[in-house]
Amino acid sequence: MDLNTAREQLTALQEKMSAYNHALGLLSYDGETTAPKGTAPNRAHTMGILSEIMYTLSTGKDTVELLEYLDAHKEELNAKEQRMMYLLLKDIRAMQKIPMDEYVAYEKLVVESQDVWYSAKNNDDFASFEPYLEKIVENRIRFAHYIAPDMDPYDYWLNEFEPGISRQSCDAFFAKLRERLVPLIAACSEKPQVSDACIKGDFPEDKQEELSYYLMSIMGLNLERVGLSTTEHPFTTSLGSHLDERITTHYYREDVSSSMFSVIHESGHALYDTGSDDDLAYTVLDGGVSMGIHESQSRFCENILGRSRAFCRFVFPKMQTLFPEQMKGYTWEDFYKAVNRVQPSLIRTEADEVTYSLHIMIRYELEKRLMAGELKVRDLPLAWNQMYKDYLGIDVPDDKQGVLQDSHWSFGAIGYFPSYALGSAYGAQFLARMKETVDIDAALEKGDFGPMNEWNREHIWRFGSSLTPAQILDNAMGAPFDPTYYLDYLEAKCKDVYGV
Amino acid sequence: MDLNTAREQLTALQEKMSAYNHALGLLSYDGETTAPKGTAPNRAHTMGILSEIMYTLSTGKDTVELLEYLDAHKEELNAKEQRMMYLLLKDIRAMQKIPMDEYVAYEKLVVESQDVWYSAKNNDDFASFEPYLEKIVENRIRFAHYIAPDMDPYDYWLNEFEPGISRQSCDAFFAKLRERLVPLIAACSEKPQVSDACIKGDFPEDKQEELSYYLMSIMGLNLERVGLSTTEHPFTTSLGSHLDERITTHYYREDVSSSMFSVIHESGHALYDTGSDDDLAYTVLDGGVSMGIHESQSRFCENILGRSRAFCRFVFPKMQTLFPEQMKGYTWEDFYKAVNRVQPSLIRTEADEVTYSLHIMIRYELEKRLMAGELKVRDLPLAWNQMYKDYLGIDVPDDKQGVLQDSHWSFGAIGYFPSYALGSAYGAQFLARMKETVDIDAALEKGDFGPMNEWNREHIWRFGSSLTPAQILDNAMGAPFDPTYYLDYLEAKCKDVYGV
Repeated sequence: MDLNTAREQLTALQEKMSAYNHALGLLSYDGETTAPKGTAPNRAHTMGILSEIMYTLSTGKDTVELLEYLDAHKEELNAKEQRMMYLLLKDIRAMQKIPMDEYVAYEKLVVESQDVWYSAKNNDDFASFEPYLEKIVENRIRFAHYIAPDMDPYDYWLNEFEPGISRQSCDAFFAKLRERLVPLIAACSEKPQVSDACIKGDFPEDKQEELSYYLMSIMGLNLERVGLSTTEHPFTTSLGSHLDERITTHYYREDVSSSMFSVIHESGHALYDTGSDDDLAYTVLDGGVSMGIHESQSRFCENILGRSRAFCRFVFPKMQTLFPEQMKGYTWEDFYKAVNRVQPSLIRTEADEVTYSLHIMIRYELEKRLMAGELKVRDLPLAWNQMYKDYLGIDVPDDKQGVLQDSHWSFGAIGYFPSYALGSAYGAQFLARMKETVDIDAALEKGDFGPMNEWNREHIWRFGSSLTPAQILDNAMGAPFDPTYYLDYLEAKCKDVYGV
Repeated sequence: MDLNTAREQLTALQEKMSAYNHALGLLSYDGETTAPKGTAPNRAHTMGILSEIMYTLSTGKDTVELLEYLDAHKEELNAKEQRMMYLLLKDIRAMQKIPMDEYVAYEKLVVESQDVWYSAKNNDDFASFEPYLEKIVENRIRFAHYIAPDMDPYDYWLNEFEPGISRQSCDAFFAKLRERLVPLIAACSEKPQVSDACIKGDFPEDKQEELSYYLMSIMGLNLERVGLSTTEHPFTTSLGSHLDERITTHYYREDVSSSMFSVIHESGHALYDTGSDDDLAYTVLDGGVSMGIHESQSRFCENILGRSRAFCRFVFPKMQTLFPEQMKGYTWEDFYKAVNRVQPSLIRTEADEVTYSLHIMIRYELEKRLMAGELKVRDLPLAWNQMYKDYLGIDVPDDKQGVLQDSHWSFGAIGYFPSYALGSAYGAQFLARMKETVDIDAALEKGDFGPMNEWNREHIWRFGSSLTPAQILDNAMGAPFDPTYYLDYLEAKCKDVYGV
């Protein structure tokens, strides 16, 4: 092999991987959006075959030989090629350290486990899920030992989901958050609660859909390349490359804010993905680099921009046009307060901006103890309920609304949650830097996302995954990460809404 | 290799082919239904890669060796395995006879040609399409010579689209049709025209959609496995196997019958595909066997059942419920007459049941002359217009509504059209046989498709492609094909509607 041939093969390999990812992504998207209900087994049959082909393609002998040849010529590769190599080899090298039979057994376990979790949640039956979660925790610890014998297992997985983080950095981060958020929430709760009456009522789905497209459009998404569908749970997915993006939402007739802020959130993810430089398409460098940075973009749009005074003032006349009866007698300030109401609650995905991180913190603390063997899975519901009481001051009535609410653990994603809170905090620090050059309020009052999008494109989006998360953060923040920005931001918001 | 290993590989090969077909079918379906408009190049990129992989899989060295090994052990295979072998080898052997560079150039030509046709149609510009169609005709003749040097080229392609037919059989078939249809249409046109006022007006899309699901449901489709979407042109597609079927329709607010009978037509295709025995799934024997038999099922549902007195009487109360204002003052007999109005027209896809075959006949005669070198492509528009005058008595105002109306020739499908007319005629002969044991009118008056579906399942659907079209016809007709049944049926319909 010579280097030019190897480079061509590297390109061809990534194009093939993109094609399989496109097919698999679309099969999954079809299942969530359009497919008749009874077609799941047929889809699973196809996805099983294509996943196996994809696995063989990305980890097979030819690929390993190619990548090792390129690795041996690393110094002759440019920075992007080196990054491709790193990303492609990372998973292969991890996989090579896990005995094949254990890997196959684990893959089977998590497929079953997701079904069991789904029934367990619906039937409020933690006992049925318990043995699966026990095995998952045990496997995650064992696999981490195989791959990185010198690392703490939970550190290993934290770093997998958000490269660069550890228990140490998360402990420090969450301690700072807790220190100021707990009193902040308490202070808000002592003030008279703000009314959310204007966002509750009866909002026809077709008008909510019109609002969705309006929001996507003013946020600057290219609607020729970004589609909208409805699903049980909202999500964003790229199909094949950043040149075809789909977001989804779920309309609730009785609450206009649910889909509205979902759409803004998912559009934030879509802006990030579709903002990759076009020459990254069909390579592993295409699209967002990490969960934390992805959430920084979605939550920046949803909360920092979407729930701002300036944007609420701008968007309210549109709400009045779409929902004249429902908005009658309310002002844009009523709307602003309604969408910024702080209220400790049971369900993470419905939590407000201020209490949200406490939900994450609870999961982080529990994961840490599970992975250290200090907490048994059978004691998890009790520990969960106790922490909700301690952190949020609320009683959990059942496991369905408690420890069973999230799907993440059922598919082995232990170490994933912190990135949600980190992303929120990253966004607040970006905000501070962005404000140095961008008059955000002036832009938002005109409904113009352009200046903020340009800033994000310049500092974050265009790189796709061609830089590491740490490089992106450094690039955008120009200083070390500091959660103080986030806490200052939340306190200012609470001061404005509750006068605390 | 031993026979058991070869059998396992044969199964695995077909499962992989099904998976790629599922992915490619879904990518195409997504493009027609949901995908944002600007994502076509991204989809084409993925489809190009997957098509190439699929081509290599189905014609590559390993596959050819496997199939040739199995072919050498043909007598040890069961009937289904022999049929799989036949179907898999047929295309490979044809392809082996075409020089690779000519094959690749032709594939490129038809991709370009479809774009050119699309613009040519929109701009009413036959001249731009002419050089492409010339090359396509020339290629089709040459390829037929390579593959079957002893056959007439048009016979070769007719037999490809509907195995068993030839110019001789088509000439005889169309001559019989023409002999009785031309005077029949003339006789109808001398009677006072029936009114179609009750199906014209303003029909809201949501109500039409409700009607679609109602029709699919009473026709006996399993809605857990058959989905409905909207597209520019209605079609039916299986995804991966007969266990996941999608039909599409197009709603016109001003004409309720368009989508209504489209849905019944596409549901007929879907009944056929989904009626394959389940053990045929993920093999090349799954789903309908030929275009002609497919059309026999769709047009049987649309016309013979859907436009019958009994069904119109049954369905009219539902129409009154869905469209109370629009149906006010009309009876079910008005509705029956409206959907059976005979009227020579320009566009094949909008033609009524009686004039439909004349549209097909025109295309057949023109294709025959083109393929024999008796007609030049540049003279095609004039010949087309002349035949519409001769056969249907109408003047063609422009090529857009004339020779450019159908897409088929632009992708090389010369020899495809006759199967539409044959399918219609097959259906009428099935009807005669079915009536021996099934009281169709009694069932339709109750909206019960069960007895007809059972008959079709027993005689046609369950076999998928495991029998040849000739075997299926023999099975269902119990006698040689005879278009007299079709002509008798159409004359009876015209007698009933027009009193001729």
